[in-house]
Amino acid sequence: MQRSQPSPMTERLRALAATGPDSDMGRLLRMFWQPVAVSHSIKPGNAKPLRVMGEDLTLYRGESGRAYLVAGRCAHRRTVLHTGWVQGDEIRCMYHGWKYAGTGQCTEAPAEGAGSAGRIKIAGYPVHEYCGLIFAYLGSGVAPAFDLPRKEAFEKAGLIVFSRLQIWPCNWFQMIENSLDAVHVSFVHLAGKVGPFGEAVTAAIPKLDYVETDAGIRQVATRSSTNVRISDWAFPNNNHIVTPGRTKTSPWIHRGVWNVPVDDAHTYKIGVYAIPSSGPEEDRATVEHFEKYGDYNPADHHDELFLDKTWPEDPSLQLTPAQDYVAMMGQGDIVDRSQERLGKSDAGIILLRKIFWREMEAIRDGRPTKQWARLEHAEDLPIQSKLSAASI
Amino acid sequence: MQRSQPSPMTERLRALAATGPDSDMGRLLRMFWQPVAVSHSIKPGNAKPLRVMGEDLTLYRGESGRAYLVAGRCAHRRTVLHTGWVQGDEIRCMYHGWKYAGTGQCTEAPAEGAGSAGRIKIAGYPVHEYCGLIFAYLGSGVAPAFDLPRKEAFEKAGLIVFSRLQIWPCNWFQMIENSLDAVHVSFVHLAGKVGPFGEAVTAAIPKLDYVETDAGIRQVATRSSTNVRISDWAFPNNNHIVTPGRTKTSPWIHRGVWNVPVDDAHTYKIGVYAIPSSGPEEDRATVEHFEKYGDYNPADHHDELFLDKTWPEDPSLQLTPAQDYVAMMGQGDIVDRSQERLGKSDAGIILLRKIFWREMEAIRDGRPTKQWARLEHAEDLPIQSKLSAASI
Amino acid sequence: MQRSQPSPMTERLRALAATGPDSDMGRLLRMFWQPVAVSHSIKPGNAKPLRVMGEDLTLYRGESGRAYLVAGRCAHRRTVLHTGWVQGDEIRCMYHGWKYAGTGQCTEAPAEGAGSAGRIKIAGYPVHEYCGLIFAYLGSGVAPAFDLPRKEAFEKAGLIVFSRLQIWPCNWFQMIENSLDAVHVSFVHLAGKVGPFGEAVTAAIPKLDYVETDAGIRQVATRSSTNVRISDWAFPNNNHIVTPGRTKTSPWIHRGVWNVPVDDAHTYKIGVYAIPSSGPEEDRATVEHFEKYGDYNPADHHDELFLDKTWPEDPSLQLTPAQDYVAMMGQGDIVDRSQERLGKSDAGIILLRKIFWREMEAIRDGRPTKQWARLEHAEDLPIQSKLSAASI
Repeated sequence: MQRSQPSPMTERLRALAATGPDSDMGRLLRMFWQPVAVSHSIKPGNAKPLRVMGEDLTLYRGESGRAYLVAGRCAHRRTVLHTGWVQGDEIRCMYHGWKYAGTGQCTEAPAEGAGSAGRIKIAGYPVHEYCGLIFAYLGSGVAPAFDLPRKEAFEKAGLIVFSRLQIWPCNWFQMIENSLDAVHVSFVHLAGKVGPFGEAVTAAIPKLDYVETDAGIRQVATRSSTNVRISDWAFPNNNHIVTPGRTKTSPWIHRGVWNVPVDDAHTYKIGVYAIPSSGPEEDRATVEHFEKYGDYNPADHHDELFLDKTWPEDPSLQLTPAQDYVAMMGQGDIVDRSQERLGKSDAGIILLRKIFWREMEAIRDGRPTKQWARLEHAEDLPIQSKLSAASI
Repeated sequence: MQRSQPSPMTERLRALAATGPDSDMGRLLRMFWQPVAVSHSIKPGNAKPLRVMGEDLTLYRGESGRAYLVAGRCAHRRTVLHTGWVQGDEIRCMYHGWKYAGTGQCTEAPAEGAGSAGRIKIAGYPVHEYCGLIFAYLGSGVAPAFDLPRKEAFEKAGLIVFSRLQIWPCNWFQMIENSLDAVHVSFVHLAGKVGPFGEAVTAAIPKLDYVETDAGIRQVATRSSTNVRISDWAFPNNNHIVTPGRTKTSPWIHRGVWNVPVDDAHTYKIGVYAIPSSGPEEDRATVEHFEKYGDYNPADHHDELFLDKTWPEDPSLQLTPAQDYVAMMGQGDIVDRSQERLGKSDAGIILLRKIFWREMEAIRDGRPTKQWARLEHAEDLPIQSKLSAASI
Repeated sequence: MQRSQPSPMTERLRALAATGPDSDMGRLLRMFWQPVAVSHSIKPGNAKPLRVMGEDLTLYRGESGRAYLVAGRCAHRRTVLHTGWVQGDEIRCMYHGWKYAGTGQCTEAPAEGAGSAGRIKIAGYPVHEYCGLIFAYLGSGVAPAFDLPRKEAFEKAGLIVFSRLQIWPCNWFQMIENSLDAVHVSFVHLAGKVGPFGEAVTAAIPKLDYVETDAGIRQVATRSSTNVRISDWAFPNNNHIVTPGRTKTSPWIHRGVWNVPVDDAHTYKIGVYAIPSSGPEEDRATVEHFEKYGDYNPADHHDELFLDKTWPEDPSLQLTPAQDYVAMMGQGDIVDRSQERLGKSDAGIILLRKIFWREMEAIRDGRPTKQWARLEHAEDLPIQSKLSAASI
């Protein structure tokens, strides 16, 4: 088969940011299970609108407790379905009462007479709930088995688990690139406290190595012989990292974070925090800490961060994401990458783009994409100093 | 004369929504008197800006009490005229003092010298006040006689009359279509109170007949031999319906409602309520009821209705319009109708579109349009159960 | 050299409003020093974003106290620089620590290794602080000497000086045109108090003469033999006028005002008030007056002015600019001038446009533009009645 001509660089850079249903990236991302909501955000018998990769959808939870994801609009007059009502495990449109199963199959069109509903179908996507998140498979064909590269960290006994979702008003890819860019830690995560550290920090740039694995990209950031940080990023958009706990003696936190396009100018930052239980007192303090600080979304404090330059209080649940937000939103919502100037320290970003371009080209050419798999031998994630706690 | 080629369906559907001065629909709508404001909204000596069918206008009331509708901007430097001042029955621009009569004729251009004003004219449209509404004729040529298909209902002695105007942020045509769609009543107007009624309602779909009349379309909705509802919709955008009063013993209410494009993405829902007087106590209660609930505009409560799903209290003045709002706004502001899927119960909508396409084609071809006339023998509007009270 | 074909009038009118870096007007305006900020708005060690003629910039003040104006974004990943931190007289990006001098030269790229910074440069523009304003030269080549046509009025001993900046959401050129239009004074500045004056005012139209000078345009407005107002407007966007003081016995105020495009739909109204000192009591009252009323920006009161038609209290610092705001914003943000109808009283505007078109054509043709110079013999600015106090 003849290979398609590579498009010019500006077009190739733009393609990384385009995630709609008909885009190459959109088709690639739809081959993977993606988290789209936090489980507790939708109660049995309720429905709500959702936008994922430029597609408007209806998320509802049947009276049985099972969650479903169907098209955003009724096939009939294009009214949004979430304003209708859930009956059993189906959803009925409020305009003329057309009813749909979770598969998208119309099961009733009251004024149209018997037999008509069977010919009507809207989109309906497989849903899988895991660890307090609702995952969906928006691709064509049969959904792949649900898996995660380091899932045992979320499945151990005795974990305290929190799920969180934020929407950031920028393209998903600059959030992905930030995960493969360990240099930013030395600067971004000092931004709010610069004064005394300002001069010192430039000495602490890590040596960085990036290598493609069965699951994605492994990043090794060496700051000294006793400070080596290994991060296993999973294709196409999942980061699993370990960060310090609430206090010096608190257990470390496993964090699985996905960056899922809402549309090309907005991104879900959605994920799980899993913390080993360590006694009722410490556990209660952990829960209180998350209740107090965990709902902070920097996007709600945009002007404070960009113009007033005031920073939030809690280092791990507020300040770190706020700093990342400023670095990422500071590039604009959809960035003209043809204007940027990468350096040798951007090796991770360069590898990341190459892999995405390779996979998108396969899709365009009708060739099989890589069969990504969970890591057989995941490295232990090292403990490291609080100062270099990576952003998620 | 050769008939113009019918445009493809997507274009034809789009044409129903385009109401600007140069559009086919815009030229058609401008052949009719249209209500554009509520009389009490403009006091003698005052002026305000108004947008009608995509055209910016200045509405002012002369010191004599008479209302005028002229262009939005001064001919000179294009400053909006409503910021100027009314002098006698003319309006003067605040920038350089050019003065205009209600016909749009410039009567004074102070710094330009004698004789210059006579050569300057802006748009000026005939105005007719009726039943607390300000109607205007925005077409070319001489305005037709002002008439209404069922005007006697608004002109009887002893009526209590209320006029109301709202702006809904959607295209006018989906509001028109809702008037010719009796099925929606069985679902939309249960939306806020679903629970117990959910299953029962699907049995109550009416048998529907639609027929073109001299004035527009007559809709006959038969729910049972004792529940027949006849609605006479008047071309191009006026509905006259009768709905239950405040209490079981209150007199029924005649409502004349027009859906007039502000522009293609906004619509005036403007009309009159006329209620027979029935004694001082009942009349006072009626006035209090309208004062308390009558200013409710669902567009001011968009998120409450769509996201919080909380509904307003009063059934006729708040809940019913709120339910219609959700059904109509739920389709989006300007809907891509090529994506919808009409059924046999949409016969009214199909007839409606056919009539509009026929009239628009006549305009495009330079042939005369239909001469619509008031109904010689209007059917009595039947009393019906409160549950099926139609939306306006 | 062959002259370029004049573009049709609509295009020529549009060109007056287009100020981006590649536009003819943009290139012309960039040949002059332009005020872009008020000095006290930026403290040593701080940075803030700024938009000038469609270009995003970073204004920062080094620890030395000197102000610098560099590009808005880091060359590396395009993050906005103002979120970084000022170190000495340089600014460091918060994302990966690239550091820039005030010339735009990169002086450090920490993770890229020695020698890399020298090859990186972003925009950096000369800055000159004067009278509480920060001026910048955004043109190519060496900046011209900094000069003002009537600078001695701002440099006398014993002046009280205030600097002010507002952003109005409209194109710069309609603000310029208002300066060359003395007729507006008779109407615009009565708008808020019309009643009794309404009829009288039309008699007070001045005789107007406009002539091109070495510095710009001189406007002579003759209202009577004892009421002659001379205004020297300096090319391309500076007005120097004298207006009445706070009370009848207060000294008159020299005002230098520039209208500088933020972008094509927003304009800085930026300038200096200079008031001769006249004893401690009067001086204190002057300061109090400016503190109380001087921060009023009509753009913050748009709906009050356009819809509620309520006017602010203080005549010179609030009402006069509010009236001008209504006249200028009332034309829209970017006006389609092909729809307007100029008269003989618009001679100033017509001369103004001719001069700009001539200069823009020279730029397009690669010919030298006029060498504007300060006025050798500036006329004394006459005292005039408070009623006709011109807008700035």
